[in-house]
Amino acid sequence: MKLYGYFRSSAAFRVRIAFNLKGVESETALVNLQTGDQFSDAFRAVNPQGRVPALTLDDGTVLVQSMAIMEYLDETIPDPPLLPKGAVARARVRGLANVIACDIHPLNNLAVLNYLTGEMKVGEESKLRWYRHWVAEGLSAMEALVAGSAETGRFCHGDAPGLADICLVPQVFNAQRFDCDLGGCPTLMRVFDACMALDAFDAAQPGRQPEAASVG
Amino acid sequence: MKLYGYFRSSAAFRVRIAFNLKGVESETALVNLQTGDQFSDAFRAVNPQGRVPALTLDDGTVLVQSMAIMEYLDETIPDPPLLPKGAVARARVRGLANVIACDIHPLNNLAVLNYLTGEMKVGEESKLRWYRHWVAEGLSAMEALVAGSAETGRFCHGDAPGLADICLVPQVFNAQRFDCDLGGCPTLMRVFDACMALDAFDAAQPGRQPEAASVG
Repeated sequence: MKLYGYFRSSAAFRVRIAFNLKGVESETALVNLQTGDQFSDAFRAVNPQGRVPALTLDDGTVLVQSMAIMEYLDETIPDPPLLPKGAVARARVRGLANVIACDIHPLNNLAVLNYLTGEMKVGEESKLRWYRHWVAEGLSAMEALVAGSAETGRFCHGDAPGLADICLVPQVFNAQRFDCDLGGCPTLMRVFDACMALDAFDAAQPGRQPEAASVG
Repeated sequence: MKLYGYFRSSAAFRVRIAFNLKGVESETALVNLQTGDQFSDAFRAVNPQGRVPALTLDDGTVLVQSMAIMEYLDETIPDPPLLPKGAVARARVRGLANVIACDIHPLNNLAVLNYLTGEMKVGEESKLRWYRHWVAEGLSAMEALVAGSAETGRFCHGDAPGLADICLVPQVFNAQRFDCDLGGCPTLMRVFDACMALDAFDAAQPGRQPEAASVG
């Protein structure tokens, strides 16, 4: 397997954590989003969407979209599981994960921020307000969902890390990079700290990727 | 089960299709997004995120996020399946579904369009360009993914409708409402037509919901 990613991509960061939790190594390929590698013919041939992550399997099949890739990993490498047992519990974890994957991250990724400042000529201050608005909206809702639930444990669901935590950590990293106020999310930040105490999360963080020093 | 939705919500539309395909009826509750029902204390008590769809189970448990709700339906009512057999095939379908659920729809939903015109004071023309940009980007990538694959059949994956088709149809409805040019997506439009020939899709469309006449 070969994972196409970039140190600062939140979606690639998710998949790095998932691989680490599974204890599986994959070859990695750098797609430098700052210099436009994602738009190259070579990468478009891998993923026509021009986005990371993408995962090529040993037979050449390409999987796209971080959430789909992680579900694949969970189906093919079941231990340790990224989703709990039981359909209701699984729906809870997928729901929490998707508050980030569908309602926060898509609004704040590099392509969107570039469109705002490029095509739309939005100023830096207005772009930052946009960024912080969607983080605040999404994470405060997620905080309400976890703070009010007996299912929440050391992690978003119980005492083992899973798909919701995997989405949370890169989102928090990103939010901190844009100086978002996370004071209203004490439960999420407690979970974030519990995650970062684990090697699987720590080793996946942007600053620990080989390209961080050279292209950062 | 009770499904909180709104006729024009693409995410609620997805779940309506899924229920129809499963042949299961659910009680429905209208959350009028145009008049702000989603921000009411009553609805926030159901879903702190203030978004539809939300599904309450008979024991009172609330499930949020359309993709999580549909995975729940598929796990608890396996026939007919929304996902194919085999981890690679499932990853393909989830990947296609998420091109829409994570990269198109989040940028074009009502909350985002309202932020652009309200907070950001973006003009109508600029808002439409934004809308059409993300539709064009996302659907052209999805077209490349389906047009180039032997797995594509009458529907996005093989000859039975599934999760990718369920996401595609509401997105096309939405795109047509905003006069997007879909001429570059012949495969997707062929699949769209095949879907709309099925009662499960047709009956779920916005115009066939009871509230369409009164609040449209």
